[in-house]
Amino acid sequence: MTTVEINASKSYQVKIGHSLLSQIGAEINKLGYVRKVCIVSDSNVWPLYGEKVLTSLLKAGLQACYFLIPAGEDSKNGANYLDLLNHLAENRLTRTDVIAALGGGVVGDLAGFAAATFLRGIRFVQIPTTLLAAVDSSVGGKTAIDLPSGKNLAGAFCQPSMVLCDIDTLNSLPEDVFRDGCAEIIKTAILFDPSLFKTLCQDTLAFDRESVIACCVTHKRDIVRADEFDRGERQKLNLGHTVGHCVETLSNYTLSHGKSVAIGTAIIARAAAKLGLCSQETATKIQWLLMNFELPTTTTLSAKNLAACARTDKKRTGTTINLIIPKEIGSCILYPISINDIESIIEAGL
Amino acid sequence: MTTVEINASKSYQVKIGHSLLSQIGAEINKLGYVRKVCIVSDSNVWPLYGEKVLTSLLKAGLQACYFLIPAGEDSKNGANYLDLLNHLAENRLTRTDVIAALGGGVVGDLAGFAAATFLRGIRFVQIPTTLLAAVDSSVGGKTAIDLPSGKNLAGAFCQPSMVLCDIDTLNSLPEDVFRDGCAEIIKTAILFDPSLFKTLCQDTLAFDRESVIACCVTHKRDIVRADEFDRGERQKLNLGHTVGHCVETLSNYTLSHGKSVAIGTAIIARAAAKLGLCSQETATKIQWLLMNFELPTTTTLSAKNLAACARTDKKRTGTTINLIIPKEIGSCILYPISINDIESIIEAGL
Repeated sequence: MTTVEINASKSYQVKIGHSLLSQIGAEINKLGYVRKVCIVSDSNVWPLYGEKVLTSLLKAGLQACYFLIPAGEDSKNGANYLDLLNHLAENRLTRTDVIAALGGGVVGDLAGFAAATFLRGIRFVQIPTTLLAAVDSSVGGKTAIDLPSGKNLAGAFCQPSMVLCDIDTLNSLPEDVFRDGCAEIIKTAILFDPSLFKTLCQDTLAFDRESVIACCVTHKRDIVRADEFDRGERQKLNLGHTVGHCVETLSNYTLSHGKSVAIGTAIIARAAAKLGLCSQETATKIQWLLMNFELPTTTTLSAKNLAACARTDKKRTGTTINLIIPKEIGSCILYPISINDIESIIEAGL
Repeated sequence: MTTVEINASKSYQVKIGHSLLSQIGAEINKLGYVRKVCIVSDSNVWPLYGEKVLTSLLKAGLQACYFLIPAGEDSKNGANYLDLLNHLAENRLTRTDVIAALGGGVVGDLAGFAAATFLRGIRFVQIPTTLLAAVDSSVGGKTAIDLPSGKNLAGAFCQPSMVLCDIDTLNSLPEDVFRDGCAEIIKTAILFDPSLFKTLCQDTLAFDRESVIACCVTHKRDIVRADEFDRGERQKLNLGHTVGHCVETLSNYTLSHGKSVAIGTAIIARAAAKLGLCSQETATKIQWLLMNFELPTTTTLSAKNLAACARTDKKRTGTTINLIIPKEIGSCILYPISINDIESIIEAGL
């Protein structure tokens, strides 16, 4: 097992290893006095791991209840958020109790937002069961729900009290969903880590899961520590996301987040090379690695439509959007542009 | 005009004086770059002051939109919260924009919670138009919505960027609603300020509004500064509230918050005297002042029913409830009791 220590506004540990699901009860008891745990999970994950987690909690002397949502991004909505809050109230959770998010990013974001706001904040534990959640959404303290107008438009900054990543759960992921997580790992390598980039080039899908997840979590920890509330450096984590979110939105979410980010990253890399902000070699390396993971790098959407969508980005401050541009592998810059210039930049990268 | 400086996790000013509504646009521009303001208000307040506030914003060069809810506690619900979030998204507010809460505690709590969570937090300005909101809810950064299971069960700690209290708006309050605010002022005097208690005894409803509001805000500032996230001393602000909330709940909210708190305060004062925790003289003084403001001090509800309700209090930690007990005027203590003892204590105070 690998443990990564996180020191944000709250200190907590990310534990990554085998067979952790059966230790959840004991681990939660280490947080201090806990009486009851509400597990939040979805219709895919609960049948696979629900009983194991429940058993572990009861064995550790904890009371438990659970709240399930249909699997899929659609569930990260306001109605489910209010239902979950009511469920917590009806089950009389108090400020000493805990919410446990058992699932991927949708479950983690919804449960985390409920934990951030129920009784103005109770503790929560992330138990990511997808690669994407393990390397990205379970760490950093961003929680959110989607609104009819767009993704992640309401939420809170709220650090978990613990993250337990049982890498055995990744074995049940469809390969396609596993690849989605790889897109964020590749993003991390481009942003911060030439050595990780090299490892991924050599090993592709056969990379060592425990060490690569720990590596990504450590990088994310370092940037979140520098900028917990997303006012500066942390925006770098949006590499590939400004355009990626638009690809995802305009596909009506038929294209996954990981694949959308892969396309967004490739577009920005090509645009950066054309604008002389990075070498052609760097842009090629990035595209080559994405393709080696069988991730898409192009879209049939027009620059005009993508730009119209990007102008509604919530990262926008007034009339400026901060693009994240790769200078070379392991080094990226914030590149503020006027919303009027976004279309020509996307056009350059298509 | 009186200005009180607040230094919580965020620094801001509370401005109290005459004719402030017409200066709102200019005041908001002092916060730094703001493009658009969404005013949240209710069906009582908007017809009286909406146009004045809109005009002030437009004159100051700001864009404006507004979102109205029916007046009354029922509006502080999850459905209105989600509607407000959607309204903000549809009107494309960005992180540099501002929400302004024009109204009493219901408007302030709902708008504040939306501001705390829309895009994970945008700025908001409180413009309290009731005495209760001016002395209590507009300062301190607690925001919330009610759930079907109880009041204020979901919310966030979120400090406003500014509070503008135009005391002219208090002239439009029904006297009965004005009295509700007086209950919280009396609470403040019992907790912290023998001199304010004396002023209230002498002047009753004719007290000087600007100086008394400023005095209450200053006391609240000091205790919030000591304990922003409500883990210790701040709980003292719940004097009269543990039982008061139950009186309010069991009346199905037909009894106002202020009157409920008055009853809760009187019950705790009588119980404290019976238990030997304060003198009979102190308990009598408290009841006498409440009666002088024509606030109620008794209830026909049974100790059994009140206690059953108190056991669901969200302040409960495990099996303990922290009661706030007046020792003498200006000095109160946290008094932790087992949930099993709450009925006999209430019984002693009925």
